[in-house]
Amino acid sequence: MSSLSSTEAGRGGDPRPGEDRRPRGVALLGSTGSIGRQAVDVLAAHPDAFRVVALATGSNAGLLAEQAARLRPAAVALGDGTSLGGLDLPPGTERVGGADALEALATRDDVDLVVVGTGGVVSLRPVLAALRAGKVVATANKETLVAGGHLVMPLARALAGQVRASRPGDPYASPLAWLRPIDSEHSAIWQCLVGESMASVAAMVLTASGGPFLDASAVQLAAVTPEQALRHPTWTMGAKITIDSATLANKGLEVIEAHWLYDVDYDAIEVVIHPQSLVHSAVRFVDGSLKAQLGTPDMRLPIQYALTYPDRRPSPAAPPDLIATGRLDFRAPDETRFPALRIAREAGRMGPRASAALIAADEVAVARFLDGTLGFTGIPALLESAVARFGGTVAPAPDPDVEELVALDLDVRAAFTTTRFGAPA
Amino acid sequence: MSSLSSTEAGRGGDPRPGEDRRPRGVALLGSTGSIGRQAVDVLAAHPDAFRVVALATGSNAGLLAEQAARLRPAAVALGDGTSLGGLDLPPGTERVGGADALEALATRDDVDLVVVGTGGVVSLRPVLAALRAGKVVATANKETLVAGGHLVMPLARALAGQVRASRPGDPYASPLAWLRPIDSEHSAIWQCLVGESMASVAAMVLTASGGPFLDASAVQLAAVTPEQALRHPTWTMGAKITIDSATLANKGLEVIEAHWLYDVDYDAIEVVIHPQSLVHSAVRFVDGSLKAQLGTPDMRLPIQYALTYPDRRPSPAAPPDLIATGRLDFRAPDETRFPALRIAREAGRMGPRASAALIAADEVAVARFLDGTLGFTGIPALLESAVARFGGTVAPAPDPDVEELVALDLDVRAAFTTTRFGAPA
Repeated sequence: MSSLSSTEAGRGGDPRPGEDRRPRGVALLGSTGSIGRQAVDVLAAHPDAFRVVALATGSNAGLLAEQAARLRPAAVALGDGTSLGGLDLPPGTERVGGADALEALATRDDVDLVVVGTGGVVSLRPVLAALRAGKVVATANKETLVAGGHLVMPLARALAGQVRASRPGDPYASPLAWLRPIDSEHSAIWQCLVGESMASVAAMVLTASGGPFLDASAVQLAAVTPEQALRHPTWTMGAKITIDSATLANKGLEVIEAHWLYDVDYDAIEVVIHPQSLVHSAVRFVDGSLKAQLGTPDMRLPIQYALTYPDRRPSPAAPPDLIATGRLDFRAPDETRFPALRIAREAGRMGPRASAALIAADEVAVARFLDGTLGFTGIPALLESAVARFGGTVAPAPDPDVEELVALDLDVRAAFTTTRFGAPA
Repeated sequence: MSSLSSTEAGRGGDPRPGEDRRPRGVALLGSTGSIGRQAVDVLAAHPDAFRVVALATGSNAGLLAEQAARLRPAAVALGDGTSLGGLDLPPGTERVGGADALEALATRDDVDLVVVGTGGVVSLRPVLAALRAGKVVATANKETLVAGGHLVMPLARALAGQVRASRPGDPYASPLAWLRPIDSEHSAIWQCLVGESMASVAAMVLTASGGPFLDASAVQLAAVTPEQALRHPTWTMGAKITIDSATLANKGLEVIEAHWLYDVDYDAIEVVIHPQSLVHSAVRFVDGSLKAQLGTPDMRLPIQYALTYPDRRPSPAAPPDLIATGRLDFRAPDETRFPALRIAREAGRMGPRASAALIAADEVAVARFLDGTLGFTGIPALLESAVARFGGTVAPAPDPDVEELVALDLDVRAAFTTTRFGAPA
């Protein structure tokens, strides 16, 4: 483990007065996924500000080669490295292989910022390595905070603390400058927090579209098919997150992320159903003021903000049009019909093992719902069962490290993938 | 005129590193009016943070004596000072009289912040004197910016520039830290701007309730009575501002204020009708993000924010409840039925004389509407006539100074108070 005070990359450590901390060199992990492809578009639109130094993806060798030809990175990694030999790369682009390829890319000297678009708890390893090397991390990976918040946030807070000691007003004096959320809700809260003191915050208000079954009865919910659940009313997203939106499990995971990102109690994290999805989230302050961030549903906006913070740059995202939208609605979530929200909040309160079990179980539950071996209302039932079974320890135990989290993740998947739990009648 | 580089008050000039700029000593001009009384409540709720050093009011000697007994200021002023002798004051409270009493209070060494709750263009004198002495000014006086923006803002920008030169991230590196708006819309925009660069701003979005006649026809508007116009749907305010809300003249004046406060073009200042008055205003950024500030209609919130910036403190203002409100509506303003908005924008573009004529004419127009000598639709007609008659100069002329603005104000009032202009049929 390298020291937090390393300044080799010119970013961590005690800053020089007036130092420009803007990240330039970017490592993009998961470059061929949905977040990765949009991040490539954003980075390519601002060639004066960024240089893509490293690209990594799991298996899409063809698109990785295209991206490498376009962006000419210094290094690329593909899956476990076995198929790197045949990859057609520009001259000068280094092939990085092996089990530690992502950590190697994330900690390169020429990397200032690491975009994490990869999935799974294994992504915690490059995230932690990058922060330990004093890099900025912008992450769309939910396990980073849901399972690993207790490991990640102390590193981000330490980096911020080093800056704050000498330059309290510096944008990098905030942990959010070092661990940057890439999702519309947490980007919204982050944007509402800039220039504000955390001591002024009364509550975070996460908005949720409510999904396609907002007004469905319990009986109707039990009969929901994958085809119905995949039709999200406002966002076009991958299957997993679309189902998570329909169950509110996604919002539950965001509640846990909010707890870690902003260091706030679960009691101070509210969820409001907002079907138009224009208000991405809000912050309520101790004086009774509430600040909200609004935007059209376009992930390029939170991706770009995570890259350009504290600056903003023009983007292709259309601004929200209050007059054309005409009307914004808000209502309370129904945790009886959508128990995943309550279960996630309870898992968060139980601690990192329960949260890690929840997010692993949700992967299994959604996959089984989509392949027809679990009903829609079986999803929260499976989550609750996984949290109860794997979320506690018999005796008091220290918080889990990455190795334990990875093992727990495998255990949960094994237990619920092979079980007959919740199979539709 | 004292020098901008004066540091006698310990506020202007080149700051010492780590200096605490929080204002403590407060002079309250207009202490017995609506803004003044609410400011007294806010200040009294935070005795650890503020000390009321000076109070001034026009004529309400009884309430001034009560406030002095409660707050024990170092000095008070009453109107032109003639009735000060009989005022029952606590021991040690100095009586300040004379034509320059407000300037004298605003520039005292023990004053850090001046709250301006007085009306009229004459309030420009203590505002300018305070800024020249390096004091923070928090103003509810609309003439400060509508008529005097070209005089006031260069002083605020110079104070901010001195701080920015040595501490770019300091909250006092912004002109808004020195000239603080006390009204819900501009406080909202200010709150949305903290932590953001002005270079990131695409547009200001001012919300307007639309007043009680939002859906009235042109024929109905012509027949509106003062009693009908005084029933504001969302705010309980004085008669003048309630009528201004019904004509949208108030929003027009705020457009001009926004131009000066934020140094933005009129094309970048939008008005949106929002009948629930929960979204107090918003800022749209170049990346397509929009930040809005929401609150219940309670002036204690913007008053307190203007006192505690950059901090926030608990306040008695109830937070907005999105779920209980349920629905927020937005629509475009109709400048055909409500021409005051268009007239104000044109006056703003013409320059300070036209804006000063507009705000003086609006005083006359509303008074005449309330006393029955002008119809409701006569208000914008009078405004347009005053702007046309007094808003230009025959030859190019330098921008007006305070003396010219005060004279112009008297000329406009004289011309339209005594005329038969627009008398109801």
